[in-house]
Amino acid sequence: MLNQDSIVALATPSGAGAIAVIRISGKDAIAIGNSVFESVRGKDLTKQKSHTLHLGHIVDGNFTLDEVLASVFKGPNSYTGEDTIEISCHGSVFIQQQIIQLLLRKGCRMAQAGEFTLRAFLNGKLDLSQAEAVADLIASDNEASHQIAMKQMRGGFSIEIAQLRQELLNFASLIELELDFAEEDVAFADRKQFHELLNRIEFVLKRLIDSFAVGNVIKNGIPVAIVGEPNVGKSTLLNALLNEERAIVSDIAGTTRDTIEDELVINGIGFRFIDTAGIRETQDVVESIGIKKTFEKMEQAQVVVYLIDNGQLIIDNGLDGVKVEIEKIRNQFPLKPLVVIGNKSDKLDEGQKSKIESEIPGILLISAKQNTGIDDLKSQLLSFVDTGALRNNETIVTNTRHYDSLLKALEEIRKVQFGLQTNLPSDLMAIDIREALYHFGSITGEVTNDELLGNIFANFCIGK
Amino acid sequence: MLNQDSIVALATPSGAGAIAVIRISGKDAIAIGNSVFESVRGKDLTKQKSHTLHLGHIVDGNFTLDEVLASVFKGPNSYTGEDTIEISCHGSVFIQQQIIQLLLRKGCRMAQAGEFTLRAFLNGKLDLSQAEAVADLIASDNEASHQIAMKQMRGGFSIEIAQLRQELLNFASLIELELDFAEEDVAFADRKQFHELLNRIEFVLKRLIDSFAVGNVIKNGIPVAIVGEPNVGKSTLLNALLNEERAIVSDIAGTTRDTIEDELVINGIGFRFIDTAGIRETQDVVESIGIKKTFEKMEQAQVVVYLIDNGQLIIDNGLDGVKVEIEKIRNQFPLKPLVVIGNKSDKLDEGQKSKIESEIPGILLISAKQNTGIDDLKSQLLSFVDTGALRNNETIVTNTRHYDSLLKALEEIRKVQFGLQTNLPSDLMAIDIREALYHFGSITGEVTNDELLGNIFANFCIGK
Repeated sequence: MLNQDSIVALATPSGAGAIAVIRISGKDAIAIGNSVFESVRGKDLTKQKSHTLHLGHIVDGNFTLDEVLASVFKGPNSYTGEDTIEISCHGSVFIQQQIIQLLLRKGCRMAQAGEFTLRAFLNGKLDLSQAEAVADLIASDNEASHQIAMKQMRGGFSIEIAQLRQELLNFASLIELELDFAEEDVAFADRKQFHELLNRIEFVLKRLIDSFAVGNVIKNGIPVAIVGEPNVGKSTLLNALLNEERAIVSDIAGTTRDTIEDELVINGIGFRFIDTAGIRETQDVVESIGIKKTFEKMEQAQVVVYLIDNGQLIIDNGLDGVKVEIEKIRNQFPLKPLVVIGNKSDKLDEGQKSKIESEIPGILLISAKQNTGIDDLKSQLLSFVDTGALRNNETIVTNTRHYDSLLKALEEIRKVQFGLQTNLPSDLMAIDIREALYHFGSITGEVTNDELLGNIFANFCIGK
Repeated sequence: MLNQDSIVALATPSGAGAIAVIRISGKDAIAIGNSVFESVRGKDLTKQKSHTLHLGHIVDGNFTLDEVLASVFKGPNSYTGEDTIEISCHGSVFIQQQIIQLLLRKGCRMAQAGEFTLRAFLNGKLDLSQAEAVADLIASDNEASHQIAMKQMRGGFSIEIAQLRQELLNFASLIELELDFAEEDVAFADRKQFHELLNRIEFVLKRLIDSFAVGNVIKNGIPVAIVGEPNVGKSTLLNALLNEERAIVSDIAGTTRDTIEDELVINGIGFRFIDTAGIRETQDVVESIGIKKTFEKMEQAQVVVYLIDNGQLIIDNGLDGVKVEIEKIRNQFPLKPLVVIGNKSDKLDEGQKSKIESEIPGILLISAKQNTGIDDLKSQLLSFVDTGALRNNETIVTNTRHYDSLLKALEEIRKVQFGLQTNLPSDLMAIDIREALYHFGSITGEVTNDELLGNIFANFCIGK
């Protein structure tokens, strides 16, 4: 399965910068790197120690391509576990291309997406869930998703799964041993201990499966539907929410963040805001289609924010209309957290504020423009996120593939539990245990196949 | 002048990638790097040898930010000449920001544009023209500009200038010595040798100044005005010209080139195509404004390409009209190279082709669509570029600042030559020689000031 040919790719983001890094890994990586490298001190890269850096030039015949630093890593002490060279060159796109083309001519092959990490997995440097965490880590854009990916990359998840798998494997062996002595009707596996182990496994699996609800929203952002007529101040609100966070980023020139509209990070947790139209009663056919869509979007969201223009509310004397709408949302989604926000409260006097607050209990009066009430809104939004597991440093499942495997493992464990209760013959029970073990193993990659690996690493970037 | 505080910046292009590199340089760079680094093998970075790599984690208190490789460079054996740490981290924008923020809190300062290279210059690792070549190298997007920048970075230009300067300096010293013995009317400086030296300097200066014509177009691309009515096939022609070059680039996934419309690289030389309208006679006021603009654009171009639709030519029997237009361009720009191209020649039979070729001498019949005649066009375009200096590996001036200094130096040298002919007193001649030396020195940075340095390095990217 493991191909040892030498692969090459650009490891740094594409585009121009001060420097760029080109990575070569494989059996002949150091020899190929050396064949295009002229050390300023006449060094031979193939004779250098691991983890050393060397100044020199990349040369193509008589043609000097660049002055570079070459890093030498000797397998197994490298990211991939193979011999590796990293060439740190000037960051012009032209130079990057020329060096890669030269290396391709010298016998390297262009790396596929995630191929360096795939090799790290195949060489036992990482298990599969750790490898997947590498991609999550690169994709993480907030503290919560970063911390979960970091923990998973460092093996937190794998260790928990591997321990359960090992204990289950021990019992499986004993049960299977019984099969060899079937005539004699002996029980090597202590049924009571086995029962306890199964309960423990069930408990852990359920906790991990439950954690996916949090893990998934942390990884992908918590979807929040904002219900509101045009002009009630949605953009101003999003800007007010975003402002503080953005200030941190803009301090650092050269690291500008790709802003995705309506995606905010509040206290390290990502929120995705889904814009919707209002839901006022209407006879208009086109508009009623719009209302249907609004309800569909609320369905997809984890939290609904209902935004009203306070000023307009007073002018229209429209408290009754708003109350009907709130009722409608509550009836449709009784379990979904709803935040009612009255914006533009700077236009109200104290009497008007009191009236609104007494008529619409729980309404949050804010002024996005004057930045008042924004912190209360943030606290409310954060209160809907169960960050307990995060705070307690528990393992959180964020990967749909792991979630699926955990669900399947739980299903098999329950079959085994039922078999134990009903005194199912050992040979039948052994099959269910093997199935559960299979699903455990698929998470960390002890059990795997080419198609699965292909799917996982295809989502990586090239150069990783 | 030299500040030794520790500066930090992202050195790789901004955005997400497999890895990113953060660079710290300064007196405390290694200590600061060490304060946030936890080696997996318990190593202390301050005690490691130069040019070594170390695996570990970047930690902020109890919070692990990333698994990284730290490169240690001890001054003066580093890019800046100072102690330097390069942190190779996972390429998430979030991680890049977090690590930079942490380092800022630990006592680093955000580097200004070009500040690493400025320090390299101030520490004598590079002279000023070499430092400027670093920025050119990063900006180069074709072989010719890359080779010139590479040569300049490796000192080719500086060596030539420094030699002349040294010889002139020797004579200046002798002339100035004469001033001390003014009473005795001695001549330490051999006037004949001095005369020869001045001629040699004049010759080299003239060659360098002349090379700017080539150097400038190579650096910025050769401006080519394409004169042509809409629909004569300009886009198809540009695509046909570009196709081959692009094929090379698209072989390499992950290194996509930022395509700039109408900018082509042919055999390593950049061409910028300036689109213009046709110049047919018209009574229309609006259109005659257009024709005026066309002539202005032709004025700016180094080469004019006049593109005609052959098929339309035959249908309109319009050879006479075209001949008038060609005449008009030739009269307006008698010294500017003009290429007349008849496109869509696939629609002509041999008789028609002969007719056009005999009536319009020098016309190049092509079919952009069928890709015929494209190579001939490339050869013609390249023939207008004097690549002799490039081929002969001569020093080529590409930098406007150097060009200005060379012009000023030449002016002073001519004053000295005149002074020598007219037996100008030594004290007056010495002033002119000092002026010439000043301009030589400003190129390589022996003579410099804060404002000049500020201007030069402000154009660098941050992290370089």
